Amino acid sequence: MSNFLTTFETALWLKERNRFLIITHRRPDGDTLGSAGALAQGLREQGKTAYILYNPETTPRYERFVEQYQASDNFIPDYVIAVDTASTDLFTKNAAKYKDSVSLCIDHHKSNTLYAGLTCLYAEIASCGEIVFDILMEMTGSVSNAAAERLYVALSTDTGCFVFGNTTANTLYVASQLVKAGVRNNEINKVLFRTKSQGRIGIEGLLLSGLEYSFDGKVAMASITKNMIEETGATEDDMDDIASIPGVVKGVCIGITIREMSSQNDCKLSVRSRSPYDAQAICAHFGGGGHMLAAGCTIDKTIPEIKKMLLDVIKGQMTF
Amino acid sequence: MSNFLTTFETALWLKERNRFLIITHRRPDGDTLGSAGALAQGLREQGKTAYILYNPETTPRYERFVEQYQASDNFIPDYVIAVDTASTDLFTKNAAKYKDSVSLCIDHHKSNTLYAGLTCLYAEIASCGEIVFDILMEMTGSVSNAAAERLYVALSTDTGCFVFGNTTANTLYVASQLVKAGVRNNEINKVLFRTKSQGRIGIEGLLLSGLEYSFDGKVAMASITKNMIEETGATEDDMDDIASIPGVVKGVCIGITIREMSSQNDCKLSVRSRSPYDAQAICAHFGGGGHMLAAGCTIDKTIPEIKKMLLDVIKGQMTF
Repeated sequence: MSNFLTTFETALWLKERNRFLIITHRRPDGDTLGSAGALAQGLREQGKTAYILYNPETTPRYERFVEQYQASDNFIPDYVIAVDTASTDLFTKNAAKYKDSVSLCIDHHKSNTLYAGLTCLYAEIASCGEIVFDILMEMTGSVSNAAAERLYVALSTDTGCFVFGNTTANTLYVASQLVKAGVRNNEINKVLFRTKSQGRIGIEGLLLSGLEYSFDGKVAMASITKNMIEETGATEDDMDDIASIPGVVKGVCIGITIREMSSQNDCKLSVRSRSPYDAQAICAHFGGGGHMLAAGCTIDKTIPEIKKMLLDVIKGQMTF
Repeated sequence: MSNFLTTFETALWLKERNRFLIITHRRPDGDTLGSAGALAQGLREQGKTAYILYNPETTPRYERFVEQYQASDNFIPDYVIAVDTASTDLFTKNAAKYKDSVSLCIDHHKSNTLYAGLTCLYAEIASCGEIVFDILMEMTGSVSNAAAERLYVALSTDTGCFVFGNTTANTLYVASQLVKAGVRNNEINKVLFRTKSQGRIGIEGLLLSGLEYSFDGKVAMASITKNMIEETGATEDDMDDIASIPGVVKGVCIGITIREMSSQNDCKLSVRSRSPYDAQAICAHFGGGGHMLAAGCTIDKTIPEIKKMLLDVIKGQMTF
């Protein structure tokens, strides 16, 4: 069973030790990579040896925040630290060998399985980056520009740039301190939040223009054909989170996206709902699964056929 | 010539006076209305009489933040205060009679014409709301929940929820203090930034689908016809900040939006640019004005004519 550490205790623990390897989670986001980068940077500034274990799933947009800390294959750490990683199931393959020897885990997930020897866990905090900020502040009383930049990536990506429901006074306060420390938030925001490819813009335009409303605006359906993707030049990267768009419309309780995959008769259905409407129940009807508010399935029918079936299923299941 | 006041001096000035009428600018945004609401609220909490002059262009999304402070027609103020209003040209018709008798202007626009007797001007601040926050803090040492909520509207709308380039450490710090004061930022964010009307979705869809790229993707032009607005049922509220969309596309340095106003021969041009490209220089060619990165003008030509003229102007002025 893990022992819990406060950020103050974590800072003390780090101060007294050396030779750290930092682990990030699978499908790494800005929070795990930014937290790891900032921690490595902060530890190095204290004269420590600190590396990040290479995460093979790192996407190009985050590479520059971690690449300079990448551990060589023959680095043997004295202490392994996992950041933003709730369970060893989320370890990348090359981290598997450390599953039973993580000394410290710094995390903000309530679901943390306490797999580490010591756990610095603050489940009410929006981003792991905020916890790392506190630790660095306890260690040194300040954060460098390089550490602050990585922490800003962590905070901003986990909160959609301070717009998601998890954003707290602490998130905004820490962000203010990071900008004060010299982070060029405008440049980072531009790349991470204010730029879309021509392909993404094109597919969003077609999707939005083609939205169909039913049940008095409570249901919105979008369809994405192979033609639309060809026409706009949208890549798979451009399709990221596209299924969340229909649910943005005011009054919509069930947002549906139907996408042609290999052929016109092979469609992927994504359903997003607002409580109490059950996205999973709709997808279960077609043999799919997921969570109550986000579910999916594949259907061997054409888009018009699926639309008709969906309206019948919703009519049978839901009362608006 | 106006005398400048610091926020501290402004707080003292307000403390010693009573019976205020607060004026907001034409086409009122969240910053002018939120600042006015917060100031009226803060002054009332100090036992003062304070009203906001009705702004006939107030859109529904902001009504609830100002309606309780609306002045009756027969209210005769001792002091008139303008917020977020750079010039008397921006006064609504019903404010015209106060043009020469504004006692105090609180503003963050460098272009402020210093039309008021006293001016509390901080041009490096992202939102007027931040200045009002400082004034209320100087007056009382705290902000109430009701004032904080209105200030949050001011800060968040002027910075696109902390994502625009004007967001500073101070913006984020003040926002953190407002959330600490009890603002339910998640609820406000959901309404202001994470929900779009069917009309907005429709017009965005058409705008995105119709984007035209030139100069190797460096220039993107969007057009909004009266037909598009009718077809989608978009309201004036739905057009808020629509001119920023073309500039979101990766690689675009100049984003242009041309909108038909009263007729096909009456178009409004909005130009947004990335440094070093000068939006103002483009609009100046058509008799318009603005800032280097955001400028506008009206042109008595049709959209196709304007597009052609614009490409010529850009070709003559810019090197990509």
